[in-house]
Amino acid sequence: MDNMNHTENTIEGRNAVIEAFRAGKTIDKLFIQDGVQDGPIQTIKREAKKHDTIVKFVTKERLDQMSTTGKHQGVIAYSASYEYAQVEDILAAARAKNEAPFLFLLDNIEDPHNLGAIIRTANLAGAHGVIIPKNRAVGLTAAVARASAGALHHTPVAKVVNLAKTIEDLKKEGIWFVCADMDGTVMYQLDLKGPIGLVIGSEGTGVGRLVKEKCDFVASIPMKGNIDSLNASVAAGVLAYEIVRQRTMI
Amino acid sequence: MDNMNHTENTIEGRNAVIEAFRAGKTIDKLFIQDGVQDGPIQTIKREAKKHDTIVKFVTKERLDQMSTTGKHQGVIAYSASYEYAQVEDILAAARAKNEAPFLFLLDNIEDPHNLGAIIRTANLAGAHGVIIPKNRAVGLTAAVARASAGALHHTPVAKVVNLAKTIEDLKKEGIWFVCADMDGTVMYQLDLKGPIGLVIGSEGTGVGRLVKEKCDFVASIPMKGNIDSLNASVAAGVLAYEIVRQRTMI
Repeated sequence: MDNMNHTENTIEGRNAVIEAFRAGKTIDKLFIQDGVQDGPIQTIKREAKKHDTIVKFVTKERLDQMSTTGKHQGVIAYSASYEYAQVEDILAAARAKNEAPFLFLLDNIEDPHNLGAIIRTANLAGAHGVIIPKNRAVGLTAAVARASAGALHHTPVAKVVNLAKTIEDLKKEGIWFVCADMDGTVMYQLDLKGPIGLVIGSEGTGVGRLVKEKCDFVASIPMKGNIDSLNASVAAGVLAYEIVRQRTMI
Repeated sequence: MDNMNHTENTIEGRNAVIEAFRAGKTIDKLFIQDGVQDGPIQTIKREAKKHDTIVKFVTKERLDQMSTTGKHQGVIAYSASYEYAQVEDILAAARAKNEAPFLFLLDNIEDPHNLGAIIRTANLAGAHGVIIPKNRAVGLTAAVARASAGALHHTPVAKVVNLAKTIEDLKKEGIWFVCADMDGTVMYQLDLKGPIGLVIGSEGTGVGRLVKEKCDFVASIPMKGNIDSLNASVAAGVLAYEIVRQRTMI
């Protein structure tokens, strides 16, 4: 399933992958055959390191299985369906609109439908962009693009190496960070106006400890039921619209 | 994909389907081979009519394709993974908690992930139950159960023949109905306290005209972006929590 979503963005073979890096394409994931050490593969590893690309070393059989051309030569890359923005682009978008920045930060959302739905929500809630971590989280695949219902064309998504570090940097720009967690203050009681970053955790484990420690507030959604938590994209929507409500009320 | 989700609840063959009906199982959908008219098939059609089951007449080739046993004998039924409740059960649940009824009504949600996520939201927002129409909408399949993250065990779901008629009946019980649509009043400006039914439309076409006409209010979620609409389960979550907020505020 995951591979299927990737096929339209598969790059196979040494030259094709080297060219993709040199053309500035964003490679979401790189699979290299275990044990292969020759010149072109070394070049690809250097490019991957330079671009902080995730590299996975796999068996030849795995690559054979993933390959659609049958000519992978020991390397398959998956490029992003959409180009990533820089964090600075997102801040610039807020400035251009003369609005206080409103960002979404997603701590390892892994389900492409959820990621797409969240980008869609970010767009409609008037957020200026979405920041996702490079490692582990799902990238901007075709499935994400579909689930975003076109929002990926409008809302910039930036990929950063370290979400906690990015939060620290953005605090210096005067942005406050609120993360969603069950042990937080009920969201209606927090002041969520002003420049804000909304941090949403992964489906399974919520917001990571290091990221949570950087946040200024922890907000909770009141839960009356019998089960644990809302779907991640629903939780993001509920919190985002509490921010919209507070920004709208005079 | 749709069929795949059904396989664990597939009932094939004339006797098996007749027995399922007589055992009181809820059949979500019934596929009968076009043109077949013999006694057992007539019995099945009568049972289907008695239970308001949706019947689809399809070619033998289609049934062959859907069959997992190869022995469909001209009929395949899909049973619900969970038993449906009655609308009265939902009202009784509200009375038992001494709370004003809070219902979700879903006008033809077709995506099992969305239906599951909405039932999950209904549970956590403290709604007493979910009402779905018999026709067209997805039923309580295994995929819906999974997406509900266990909420299906706790939150009753009732299936009704005619959603507009059900709304009319429930109005006599003093319940107000609010439906979500873009041309509505911004939700923050509506009074959503008291006994309420939240009506959510389908992913593609929103709330149907006949259902919308029965609603007391039309609520809109403020939209600032470039695209059309939120994901249906996100929209349901945002509206449900505006109701929760208004009910919580004193």
